[in-house]
Amino acid sequence: MPSFPITDKTEITRLAKRGVYDREAIYAILDEALVCTLAYCRDGQPFQIPTGFCRWEDTLYLHGSVGSFYLREITQKNLPISLGVTLMDGLVLARSAFHHSVNYRSVVMFGTARAVTDEKEAYAALEIFTHKMCPGRWADVRKPTPGEWKATMVVAVAIAEASAKVRTGPPKDDAEDYDLDVWAGVQPLQTTKGAPLPDPDLKPGVALPAYLR
Amino acid sequence: MPSFPITDKTEITRLAKRGVYDREAIYAILDEALVCTLAYCRDGQPFQIPTGFCRWEDTLYLHGSVGSFYLREITQKNLPISLGVTLMDGLVLARSAFHHSVNYRSVVMFGTARAVTDEKEAYAALEIFTHKMCPGRWADVRKPTPGEWKATMVVAVAIAEASAKVRTGPPKDDAEDYDLDVWAGVQPLQTTKGAPLPDPDLKPGVALPAYLR
Repeated sequence: MPSFPITDKTEITRLAKRGVYDREAIYAILDEALVCTLAYCRDGQPFQIPTGFCRWEDTLYLHGSVGSFYLREITQKNLPISLGVTLMDGLVLARSAFHHSVNYRSVVMFGTARAVTDEKEAYAALEIFTHKMCPGRWADVRKPTPGEWKATMVVAVAIAEASAKVRTGPPKDDAEDYDLDVWAGVQPLQTTKGAPLPDPDLKPGVALPAYLR
Repeated sequence: MPSFPITDKTEITRLAKRGVYDREAIYAILDEALVCTLAYCRDGQPFQIPTGFCRWEDTLYLHGSVGSFYLREITQKNLPISLGVTLMDGLVLARSAFHHSVNYRSVVMFGTARAVTDEKEAYAALEIFTHKMCPGRWADVRKPTPGEWKATMVVAVAIAEASAKVRTGPPKDDAEDYDLDVWAGVQPLQTTKGAPLPDPDLKPGVALPAYLR
């Protein structure tokens, strides 16, 4: 897959060596992240909303209520938006306070949002979204009714301008500090899924599905 | 502590019952989050940057290089900014696709950023920041030199306008769906710190400190 072009908006200028423009690397970060931040402007005032999302090929999909003020605003006014995700991988504990850091993988992208009016595209987006959050779930659940579809807005954002910033590995201290008697290394951070908790109102006899075990 | 006033910018209008304006609840979310997203506008174009932060009383502190374009821009031009954090607590698996959700705690706040010029305030901010990321670490490490201080920019944001949005608990399905043979419940999500990995260049004989065990 071709890398993303480096633009005025996506060029990583601070610690440029951490900049990543490779499409597969950027998509891997987007596919792992469960939540993104959508930012937009109204009269110079920035707003941001955290929301779930999924990716299909070169498009991100969001969804919400048709009453969602921000989804209506960004699609109807065709506002420039920014979407970002951040995965925290570790605390980087250097010998000096100054060189402390974190290991992370973040993506920031820019574009505009389009309301999805094609039913097949909207259905596919929600199926992919559900699969991302919980593989196997979609086949198991009651599918949306016509009334639920009417209440749901699906929004697509073409991934045109994007870049990632990534730090990995141990701390980097000044040469003279490596002889200090200070422990240095990385404390890993991980987001984990725990054992499923049944709904107190779960119908008796309904077993935990295999995809959640 | 007094709650935050509900303003045009901070009022939770979608699923208003999830809105939280209680100051202690908002501060607890801010204190748990390791990263925030800072959003600002330039000529109607939104930008966002993930960054570490800490809170002291009614102020958030960020820091970065004095060469950081965005920190210079937001402080020198006194731009309106938005800061947000999101903690993901669980996947809410309902009987119907429509009622799937997530348990989360998010905060969005609005303000402007001030460059911290008082050395004591800047020093305290970095000490609090380090303590947040790794309690006990500050006492152990080599402190910043005058040259490192010159290269560091500390920025303060007064927490004036803020609100949180919180979902907890099991799924809420339509009454007629509770009889479906579909498992329902919550899959918890958790961010955990793993066992520290020593720097390959760690000086022999330096033990893992007690605060990391």
